[in-house]
Amino acid sequence: MQTIQIGLIGLGNVGTGVVQILQQQASLIAERLGARLELKRVATQHPDRERAVQLPPAQLTGDALEVLHDPEIAIVVELVGGYEPARTYLLTALQQGKHVVTANKALLARHGREIFETATALGRDIGFEASVGGGIPIIRTIKEGFVANQFLSISCIINGTTNYILSQMSDHGLDFQEVLREAQALGYAEADPSFDVDGIDAAQKIALLASLAFGSWVPYEAIYTEGITGLSQADIAYARELGYRVKLLALAKRADGRLDVRVHPAFVAADSWLANVNGVYNAISIRGDVVGRNMLIGRGAGAFPTGSAVVGDIVDVARNILKDSSGRVPPQSYQAHSLQEIPLQEVDDVVCKYYLRFQVVDQPRVLATIAGMLGEHAISIESVLQKGRGHTQGAPVAIVMMTHEAHERSVRKALQAIATLPTIQGETVRVRVEETEEE
Amino acid sequence: MQTIQIGLIGLGNVGTGVVQILQQQASLIAERLGARLELKRVATQHPDRERAVQLPPAQLTGDALEVLHDPEIAIVVELVGGYEPARTYLLTALQQGKHVVTANKALLARHGREIFETATALGRDIGFEASVGGGIPIIRTIKEGFVANQFLSISCIINGTTNYILSQMSDHGLDFQEVLREAQALGYAEADPSFDVDGIDAAQKIALLASLAFGSWVPYEAIYTEGITGLSQADIAYARELGYRVKLLALAKRADGRLDVRVHPAFVAADSWLANVNGVYNAISIRGDVVGRNMLIGRGAGAFPTGSAVVGDIVDVARNILKDSSGRVPPQSYQAHSLQEIPLQEVDDVVCKYYLRFQVVDQPRVLATIAGMLGEHAISIESVLQKGRGHTQGAPVAIVMMTHEAHERSVRKALQAIATLPTIQGETVRVRVEETEEE
Repeated sequence: MQTIQIGLIGLGNVGTGVVQILQQQASLIAERLGARLELKRVATQHPDRERAVQLPPAQLTGDALEVLHDPEIAIVVELVGGYEPARTYLLTALQQGKHVVTANKALLARHGREIFETATALGRDIGFEASVGGGIPIIRTIKEGFVANQFLSISCIINGTTNYILSQMSDHGLDFQEVLREAQALGYAEADPSFDVDGIDAAQKIALLASLAFGSWVPYEAIYTEGITGLSQADIAYARELGYRVKLLALAKRADGRLDVRVHPAFVAADSWLANVNGVYNAISIRGDVVGRNMLIGRGAGAFPTGSAVVGDIVDVARNILKDSSGRVPPQSYQAHSLQEIPLQEVDDVVCKYYLRFQVVDQPRVLATIAGMLGEHAISIESVLQKGRGHTQGAPVAIVMMTHEAHERSVRKALQAIATLPTIQGETVRVRVEETEEE
Repeated sequence: MQTIQIGLIGLGNVGTGVVQILQQQASLIAERLGARLELKRVATQHPDRERAVQLPPAQLTGDALEVLHDPEIAIVVELVGGYEPARTYLLTALQQGKHVVTANKALLARHGREIFETATALGRDIGFEASVGGGIPIIRTIKEGFVANQFLSISCIINGTTNYILSQMSDHGLDFQEVLREAQALGYAEADPSFDVDGIDAAQKIALLASLAFGSWVPYEAIYTEGITGLSQADIAYARELGYRVKLLALAKRADGRLDVRVHPAFVAADSWLANVNGVYNAISIRGDVVGRNMLIGRGAGAFPTGSAVVGDIVDVARNILKDSSGRVPPQSYQAHSLQEIPLQEVDDVVCKYYLRFQVVDQPRVLATIAGMLGEHAISIESVLQKGRGHTQGAPVAIVMMTHEAHERSVRKALQAIATLPTIQGETVRVRVEETEEE
């Protein structure tokens, strides 16, 4: 039986998982692939550290170049994360004639175009299923399963940290800071959580998915991105009362020759599929013009789910090596000459329903004044909840509104005008309502 | 740009959808594949009939042999359905050196082993993503995305007709016969609905999925199969009251060196993912030892969703033609010499909770007698609802019980004994409770 040699750079959480999977599942994989995968060399910054996996000392090295320049290694797996030296490792591996597999969404969101072009030019494969949604086979689905579809939209819960935080806030009535501390203690959130809670991680992932689905490179820095730090327990509770759940959504849609790509908290109907995806699960709802709506749910992180995707990619690349069919599926889903440049839509052009929560001084006519100013901006109100009245004369009360569909630009202008009212106290909370109803 | 010629046999609902997709998406597919797909010849029993698609008369033929023996055709798509002549068409196409794509789960469930072996021996590809779950990319996911996993279980809602019927019964309080008639009028159920409502369609599909996942051929005739015709509106309503929904589940699990594969109605927790998959949607929940639990949801039938999967397979086969890499992924997921024969578990060995509904004459001690007889068979009761008491002296009332986990064998014997009681009226309803909680 033929053997294909693998080199691994990076032996952190996911790297350790990949080693364990390659060891435990060696014969299972051989029975399916018809060849053996052999982990020849593993580069890590700390080759002497104790770890969860047993590796012969000769297999470990502190020098990534020993992996990159080993002529027997056919596939290099990059699991160091970050931008550099990960980028250099991947480009070097490709130039050395190796195929590559990575779980590094940050790197691909920033340098994916360069890396994909290099792989294509050199006729090498790049597998990156693990970069989005952990073990969920979304990249394979976009590039292969749904290849006959013009994609219409992608709506996803794609960051496990924020989904865990929002689920806990919703289920246990806790505040953001409280849940964040707990998530950090459990290892679900980083010491510096900003990358997750500010939506940047989700933006990098949706940028990548949109680039594949629409065949146009979407730079993640250009995506409208709003995190979950502005949401209070009150908003989560009002959402429930109104028949919704609050989720951090990453969205990408076609919109009149442009792409509407954004990341922000959204109200989703309580009985929708996305509303019931909780905790550390991720979900990707994708609509194609012929297949209709599909949803994929699974664990979005963790050594084994992510490792499952990494090893799935290794097998995929290995099948190409065995059949000499590298480059069988282009990295960005489209042939290089068919890639386009589709401009992004401004967030001001979004049209949706809005949840608005005003903090006001409880005085006569304040509701009428706000409603009137919304009306002047062509925003009509679907329902109103007025909360906390009558406790203390003159104390702040909440006015909660659900609007009918309105233009983001109008809502922004109306809220700017309303903010100047003397009766308004503090920041008004505005959350978009995303209609994700099953057709 | 290279052109790959396609031949199609069968121009019914799905066939027409495939033609429309190949026409409408021709340039999109070319941009992704890097080659053109050309529908060269279409065989149909009624070439002169009016249809939703425009095809030049010269492209149509009444003779399938004209497709099968056309030397320019590289891929034959079989969409006639049924066992014969579909089987002969597929085998002939393979012998003629063509690759094949089919949506025919009945044929594969019965003759799949022969067809897969023929394709493997001849080095030809067979695509059959469309045979299970319409547009849902489940076969690709089992064979490729999750290739690094030992599969632990598959739980699915995989028959749209019965899911539509059960959803309507649950949402609108209607009876089975009533909803069935409506479903027939809407085209969601056949004139002879037995294939769907008796669970045979679901058995054929889970047989196929289990065969791929476990690398052992599962004959669908050997699967324990129970349809939905024994369920009344009362059971659906009690399920709701108890916090469950009733679904026709198709299940396949590893169980002590055997495979536990079955199709039957089941109670699933109201807040589980499967419970919220309604109407004509299908859902496949699959658990791998490293990836954990994943679920895929989508339309399980219809010309376009199924056509999307057919064309996805055509593109997959075409990529292999372009790279001369046919046989890249073995049809049954494992290399032929690694396929095993794993015996099926008897349904008597199942262990689960049960919902039981007894119709009894309302007399003192009838509940105690039933509970006592269950206890003698080591079945303990979790909760009891007694319904309809006090309306008319001596009139039949319902006793509804949820048991703790029990052996199917014990439940069967206990119900046989209880059926002999003079106070028992009519058939006792027994529905298994499937725990599908998210880890």
